[in-house]
Amino acid sequence: MEMNKEMITSAANKKVRNVMLLSTKSKERRKQKLFVAEGVKMFLEAPHEQIREVYLSEELLKDKEGFSAVSDKLTAIGKQKHTAVEIVKKDIFQKICDTKTPQGILCLVEMPEYAFEKILDRENGLYLVLEDIQDPGNLGTMIRAGEGAGITGVVMSSHTADVYNPKTIRATMGSIYRIPVVYEEDLAESIKTMKRKGIQTYAAHLEGKRAYDKEDYHKATAFLIGNEGNGLSRPIADLADNYVKIPMLGKVESLNAAIAATLLIYEAARQRRN
Amino acid sequence: MEMNKEMITSAANKKVRNVMLLSTKSKERRKQKLFVAEGVKMFLEAPHEQIREVYLSEELLKDKEGFSAVSDKLTAIGKQKHTAVEIVKKDIFQKICDTKTPQGILCLVEMPEYAFEKILDRENGLYLVLEDIQDPGNLGTMIRAGEGAGITGVVMSSHTADVYNPKTIRATMGSIYRIPVVYEEDLAESIKTMKRKGIQTYAAHLEGKRAYDKEDYHKATAFLIGNEGNGLSRPIADLADNYVKIPMLGKVESLNAAIAATLLIYEAARQRRN
Repeated sequence: MEMNKEMITSAANKKVRNVMLLSTKSKERRKQKLFVAEGVKMFLEAPHEQIREVYLSEELLKDKEGFSAVSDKLTAIGKQKHTAVEIVKKDIFQKICDTKTPQGILCLVEMPEYAFEKILDRENGLYLVLEDIQDPGNLGTMIRAGEGAGITGVVMSSHTADVYNPKTIRATMGSIYRIPVVYEEDLAESIKTMKRKGIQTYAAHLEGKRAYDKEDYHKATAFLIGNEGNGLSRPIADLADNYVKIPMLGKVESLNAAIAATLLIYEAARQRRN
Repeated sequence: MEMNKEMITSAANKKVRNVMLLSTKSKERRKQKLFVAEGVKMFLEAPHEQIREVYLSEELLKDKEGFSAVSDKLTAIGKQKHTAVEIVKKDIFQKICDTKTPQGILCLVEMPEYAFEKILDRENGLYLVLEDIQDPGNLGTMIRAGEGAGITGVVMSSHTADVYNPKTIRATMGSIYRIPVVYEEDLAESIKTMKRKGIQTYAAHLEGKRAYDKEDYHKATAFLIGNEGNGLSRPIADLADNYVKIPMLGKVESLNAAIAATLLIYEAARQRRN
């Protein structure tokens, strides 16, 4: 561990400026292949070998109980040559955090690289295919619920929100470390590949005739989920093997994208459990 | 209709100031028994008799296609003595809106008053009971999904977020006009009343033994949903007739509150359909 004893006291500090850059610019995240993970839970669940820098607020160091929650892991990653730990003055730490009441710890984590074709090679995989989802919170919520339902991976169009946005990271509650995610330049082509591999594709669609709980999701299954405002584009919806509908009572015309995705993957999980 | 021909051009205008007050202060909303509903869909779905004031941006008036979407309803409510319509200068209209790209129409809507005991009198009702839900978006999402699943009403602790917050209103996508919602000072007492009326109460809880899809929700059912950070408090959880678990794979410890609520009510809806 490269423990820098001197506390960072200035917002002009090079490292601090880089954290802020990584928090706000997805382009910078892609370039450096790093993302920012804030808070105790996100630090504790981060895979050791992916942690590159850790920032501790001076306050957390003074807080005996708070510090004890992270000290074991700090010691463990301290043995890693590629990990640096920095202490940061209170007001500067507040500046680099995206949350109003930071927990005193933040780390820079290496982006894992997943290969699309490899994700597809799981037996009876369960996939979410997302077309242009815009809301970072929705995206993170889907990944979190997705892990709970046992999904194999998330395939996204290139215009989907950045999964390494701090808001998305937070909403995943740690699932980002465990669920493979890939961006695909040509989503239609990728769906065709999935179909060739024997993955059944379903789209929740107003034109769906059968309710979503009437299909059989035991075999490899992918659910295509559209953008919050417009749903799936015609070319992508046309690729689905089946349209299913989520029955809606009252005057509801559609459900929130994360809600719809969760109902579908949890129905698959229910069938696979029973 | 009291059509004010003079366009509002100043942010100091009394009515404009009142709209901003109603957008930001829940206390003021409760006092005036009014809430702000933004956008075309929220205007079109608002019950005629509850609309008290309508604000149109000058731009919408000039936009032939955009205006045609709202003109029929404007004519209809124009016959109502208690409804005033105002035209507002572009930049002032932007100021009174909570969204970045407003659709040019906003209205003040009377809060409906629902009686708790009356909501309970439906046969085989389906209820969400919310303890201290904090996120306005989560709350709105639950009401929207709730309508889709056919819920009878939402019972909330007094520390739950304000359902008339603009963010919540927006997330309901209009369901706020149709789903009865009540705040209860003493949530424990209200749950006891529900139980006396024969409503089965279920809490999604880590201590739950049976999966949520293994219970029978055909009869009157209420799901108790806890706060995002802490879950249900012990006293409220203790009142539940049954604990159920939502199976979670991977390392997921909990689901987003709106996601958990939706899985439960949609499972009830699934059973009631089949």
